[in-house]
Amino acid sequence: MKTVALDFGSENTSPVHPAFVEAVVSANKGFATNFEAEPWTEHALGCLRDFFETKELSAFTVSTGTAANAIALGAMVPPYGAILCHWDAHIETDECGAPEMFSFGARQIPLPGEHGRMALQALSTYLQEARFGNVHSVQPAALSLTNLTEAGTAYDPDEIGALARVASKAGLGIHMDGARFANAAAHLGVTPAQLSWKAGVEVITLGTTKSGSFGAEVIVSFAPRFDTALAFLRKRSGHFAPKSRFLGAQVQAYVENDLWLRNASDANRRARRMSEGLAAIKAVALVHPTEGNEVFASMPTAMSNALVAAGCKFQRDWRLHPRHNRFVTSWATTDEEVDRMLEVCRSTSRHDAG
Amino acid sequence: MKTVALDFGSENTSPVHPAFVEAVVSANKGFATNFEAEPWTEHALGCLRDFFETKELSAFTVSTGTAANAIALGAMVPPYGAILCHWDAHIETDECGAPEMFSFGARQIPLPGEHGRMALQALSTYLQEARFGNVHSVQPAALSLTNLTEAGTAYDPDEIGALARVASKAGLGIHMDGARFANAAAHLGVTPAQLSWKAGVEVITLGTTKSGSFGAEVIVSFAPRFDTALAFLRKRSGHFAPKSRFLGAQVQAYVENDLWLRNASDANRRARRMSEGLAAIKAVALVHPTEGNEVFASMPTAMSNALVAAGCKFQRDWRLHPRHNRFVTSWATTDEEVDRMLEVCRSTSRHDAG
Amino acid sequence: MKTVALDFGSENTSPVHPAFVEAVVSANKGFATNFEAEPWTEHALGCLRDFFETKELSAFTVSTGTAANAIALGAMVPPYGAILCHWDAHIETDECGAPEMFSFGARQIPLPGEHGRMALQALSTYLQEARFGNVHSVQPAALSLTNLTEAGTAYDPDEIGALARVASKAGLGIHMDGARFANAAAHLGVTPAQLSWKAGVEVITLGTTKSGSFGAEVIVSFAPRFDTALAFLRKRSGHFAPKSRFLGAQVQAYVENDLWLRNASDANRRARRMSEGLAAIKAVALVHPTEGNEVFASMPTAMSNALVAAGCKFQRDWRLHPRHNRFVTSWATTDEEVDRMLEVCRSTSRHDAG
Amino acid sequence: MKTVALDFGSENTSPVHPAFVEAVVSANKGFATNFEAEPWTEHALGCLRDFFETKELSAFTVSTGTAANAIALGAMVPPYGAILCHWDAHIETDECGAPEMFSFGARQIPLPGEHGRMALQALSTYLQEARFGNVHSVQPAALSLTNLTEAGTAYDPDEIGALARVASKAGLGIHMDGARFANAAAHLGVTPAQLSWKAGVEVITLGTTKSGSFGAEVIVSFAPRFDTALAFLRKRSGHFAPKSRFLGAQVQAYVENDLWLRNASDANRRARRMSEGLAAIKAVALVHPTEGNEVFASMPTAMSNALVAAGCKFQRDWRLHPRHNRFVTSWATTDEEVDRMLEVCRSTSRHDAG
Repeated sequence: MKTVALDFGSENTSPVHPAFVEAVVSANKGFATNFEAEPWTEHALGCLRDFFETKELSAFTVSTGTAANAIALGAMVPPYGAILCHWDAHIETDECGAPEMFSFGARQIPLPGEHGRMALQALSTYLQEARFGNVHSVQPAALSLTNLTEAGTAYDPDEIGALARVASKAGLGIHMDGARFANAAAHLGVTPAQLSWKAGVEVITLGTTKSGSFGAEVIVSFAPRFDTALAFLRKRSGHFAPKSRFLGAQVQAYVENDLWLRNASDANRRARRMSEGLAAIKAVALVHPTEGNEVFASMPTAMSNALVAAGCKFQRDWRLHPRHNRFVTSWATTDEEVDRMLEVCRSTSRHDAG
Repeated sequence: MKTVALDFGSENTSPVHPAFVEAVVSANKGFATNFEAEPWTEHALGCLRDFFETKELSAFTVSTGTAANAIALGAMVPPYGAILCHWDAHIETDECGAPEMFSFGARQIPLPGEHGRMALQALSTYLQEARFGNVHSVQPAALSLTNLTEAGTAYDPDEIGALARVASKAGLGIHMDGARFANAAAHLGVTPAQLSWKAGVEVITLGTTKSGSFGAEVIVSFAPRFDTALAFLRKRSGHFAPKSRFLGAQVQAYVENDLWLRNASDANRRARRMSEGLAAIKAVALVHPTEGNEVFASMPTAMSNALVAAGCKFQRDWRLHPRHNRFVTSWATTDEEVDRMLEVCRSTSRHDAG
Repeated sequence: MKTVALDFGSENTSPVHPAFVEAVVSANKGFATNFEAEPWTEHALGCLRDFFETKELSAFTVSTGTAANAIALGAMVPPYGAILCHWDAHIETDECGAPEMFSFGARQIPLPGEHGRMALQALSTYLQEARFGNVHSVQPAALSLTNLTEAGTAYDPDEIGALARVASKAGLGIHMDGARFANAAAHLGVTPAQLSWKAGVEVITLGTTKSGSFGAEVIVSFAPRFDTALAFLRKRSGHFAPKSRFLGAQVQAYVENDLWLRNASDANRRARRMSEGLAAIKAVALVHPTEGNEVFASMPTAMSNALVAAGCKFQRDWRLHPRHNRFVTSWATTDEEVDRMLEVCRSTSRHDAG
Repeated sequence: MKTVALDFGSENTSPVHPAFVEAVVSANKGFATNFEAEPWTEHALGCLRDFFETKELSAFTVSTGTAANAIALGAMVPPYGAILCHWDAHIETDECGAPEMFSFGARQIPLPGEHGRMALQALSTYLQEARFGNVHSVQPAALSLTNLTEAGTAYDPDEIGALARVASKAGLGIHMDGARFANAAAHLGVTPAQLSWKAGVEVITLGTTKSGSFGAEVIVSFAPRFDTALAFLRKRSGHFAPKSRFLGAQVQAYVENDLWLRNASDANRRARRMSEGLAAIKAVALVHPTEGNEVFASMPTAMSNALVAAGCKFQRDWRLHPRHNRFVTSWATTDEEVDRMLEVCRSTSRHDAG
């Protein structure tokens, strides 16, 4: 019997999807050479080439998203470099300075933009004013975009392309934090290729963890000039898994049978259901458009309290904004859970009005 | 039907032990808060306290042994520090400078000693000659011992105690790389407590991966002064797993029902069987005593070639010594596999003699 | 014959003051043990104790201000730490990430405030919202104040005390970038002690270079807990001068006979003369109050062009603000130079009006 | 009146040579743009091009030899790189891990060789055995040779060429620590070009400090691929002097009028005088041949004690060898001082014999 979880805290609180369990258990067949000299990793590489519709890529599996971002950025920028990202980027707010550690002290430059999207104008202005070639100043070296953004919105290929072109012209490498890449692609109805290298992305950290795996992220590089640094930095930071087959198997499962797309579409659909439900409640205002599997809503404190009392898990006071709450759905979220959550909100609203 | 693998390359090529599979699958029940605010990690902590017979410990799970060592040492030494280890230590030979990265440039000082054990005299002399307090010189700050050593021998509690006392008196922190800690304890017939904190070890990186898990290592600190640095360095290096329950579940499985001891004893027994078999072959000489699950043997090239031809996997020319080969057994190694391997060796030997 | 330089680009373009030349030449008497085991450094330490009216200090001479700041901050914060500073702080804008390098990747958090002074409210809010103890977030570890500020204004002891108290209460170390400390003290008419440790400053990087020396800065620590890290980091970063006597001699000269105060007062007086002169010109607006030896003025482009044509050196478009110009005076600036510069401005103004 | 100093502790205890004093005082004429946009640095660059007989070089002045080495090596190797040097190299023994800091954790690999010279066979063997391309191992990336060696011997161009060829073929950059480069060149009677780039050196840290300056070292790069990293690393580590003219003036003085050669020849001649005198004393044995300005002698403790009693300064128990003593001469050492020192030795010897 499935319990009703009402857990919208993070995708990472969800159970692992059965397909990933099956993949890992299946990979546990007999002996296999360690450190990627085994068929699962090789197969995963083939899957990624299909996924991204190109043979021109390298891939490096790791076990966490923070690792994937930090290794990618550490390989892309010199120690005296700067990484341009959005104010709300995960690398800026939630990774305890991992990119700074892995880049040996490069600086992150947070830029503004509405609804989690970096404003093209802010990027252009920053790059125009940057003192390139001046040894007294850190040197912009990478643009890092997050898609889905931290506000649950999706950059489309044109938006990415516009930002990437400006940055690339100034000599920056283009990175994408794709912890929720599947949700963005599913929402937009575009291919992974369109949303990455075809739009100018050179290195993407592609997450399967939030899509329901045990914990497997893969740094995919479309730019061979970063590959040596990626390979050594992964090992040197303790992220090269000896029993690599279990990471390979998860990446493979993510791609095969469009699991990534199905899981993301399911999660997105529930978020939309929640979002539409909340929008219909007078006391609630959506903070950001719902373009993936995250709902940001401003609601009365009494309503938040009621949700907590009902056992609902979510992030209150998101980014320190009082009354802003974040609700995340995953492959495991059910319509029933969303409806029950909405019912709590509605009943509080009625009660308030009464 | 089980195939005969003849894979003695590394424990990490073995399949995962069913108990670990069961533990991970079982942990996949419903939702659980991410980042260790869940019962599996808490339970694992309790298990470790039983294992080490003390409540005075902190524990930090990570997914690789290189990570565990690098985080531990990075937390124990200042950037201008030095880490004393054996010439053959894994941190010196096989981690691509991970401890240097995580300590921000501390230096590793390799010291000699027979059969993988650091010579007490070498340590004493080094510390006597070290220029403590002199800013022109790196400052010895940690002693790192590996048990099982990289030569497959076991330090006993007295040996550890003697080394640790000398180092501790000089102000060094005491670290143990316990990737094969279980094999050492099983061989010696001593308790984990006797082989760690009771002998002076302050931080141990305890491996479950080589004991048959998917990949779970735990940094156990008996010295609270390192805890803050350990916690932040783990996160900052991307080694704090969001879905922590799956690491916790593996640590728990390792300790419960003495799985650690059973798996290590099984592996050790097969290594002894191999070692005794090889010792009886005239053309073969054991390079190191077999005190765990690793056999180091010098053998004619024809014999090595015959093993390769028979599909046997092992490390040839260990540490660049021609004819030195390393054979590793694991929980999954069978008597039959050992016997078949020995038979190949014996037949080559007869053939040579003929 | 002295030429009229009209060089207001930086104090560092000025010639070295004769007292520093004399000090260095005098120190070149015979042999002297290297690395501070000589009387000049010892004497300088005594001078600093007089200067700061306390015996409870340690001092570390280095040759540049960037070095002094980076060593100080590197010793004060852990790699996962954050350094709070003003948006316009030199460590943020002009040191190419030196503090990040020396702290192994700590993050600088720029805070706002008018006229170069950090707003107490901004600091308080930041610290209240900071996630202390949360491993996902960098940890505020030092407050760095610049006095004179980069806007040429002076924090008085009360302002420093208020900021330092808030930060200190939250566990931060208090650093002062005192590249122009003398100018601030001279302007305020307070003692070095009042403006540093009595107001809560724990480590100050005290500059003599901008006061007319060849290049000598001294990190003065009032907090012994930082001393070991300071000593090792100075050496390890190549900033421990073998022929230390020449740095010691300059520090000594700076303190003795109140050279610091005389040079700063002279420079400040010329800046005030310039400031008052500019304020009287209709087309000119002062951007910041003149509280030291720097004048920030907004003026028509034609006026800036006229100054350039007249051979005047200064920083145009300060911090990318069109028409904002920075003029710096030093011990070597003369009334005549200031007057001639003002005359150019006035004549342009008349011409414009005509 | 000149006192008799008997100070053979280090060249850095000597007074600054009058030509350097004159150069610095002369450079103090009026205003000069900071950060190398002034004629002294430009002139110094021209001097270095003459000195090395090539226009294909870049130069970066800094104030200490540790800085020069660390910046050079930090620019030449990746963080996962290794630096091959002699066991006794200054970077290995006396810089507190500065190269590790500036390279972000690269490892130094000390290699053996008699009399301070790296053995060609040791280098070849190490490189043959190195696991190039293997991510588990640090990657040899630079060869660092010291000339004069730390044993006071001189590599000749052929020896350097042979070592450099082997290393270069394996892809390493070639670095020379030239703190006493002048002494080596003077002893060998070869040109700076022959002893550096013509022999395969790509980056040299050329010292003027030990040749009698206040403190000026210059990183000279013959390999443009390192220049960007050198420029940024110098600034970022606080080694870009604002009042650059005083460093430029010292470099200029070093080259002009062959001051480098005259000072080195003078120092070498006194060392040879001392060396020959000591060799004639029965109780004394030279530890290394005297090929520059350093004399290493094994002598009875009574003789060392007598020297100390006579006020003589020198390094006792060099590299922890009892009875090994190091005596260094400089431009300032006189024949009289050498003779008086020898007389003390001889009288002790006679006394012992008596």
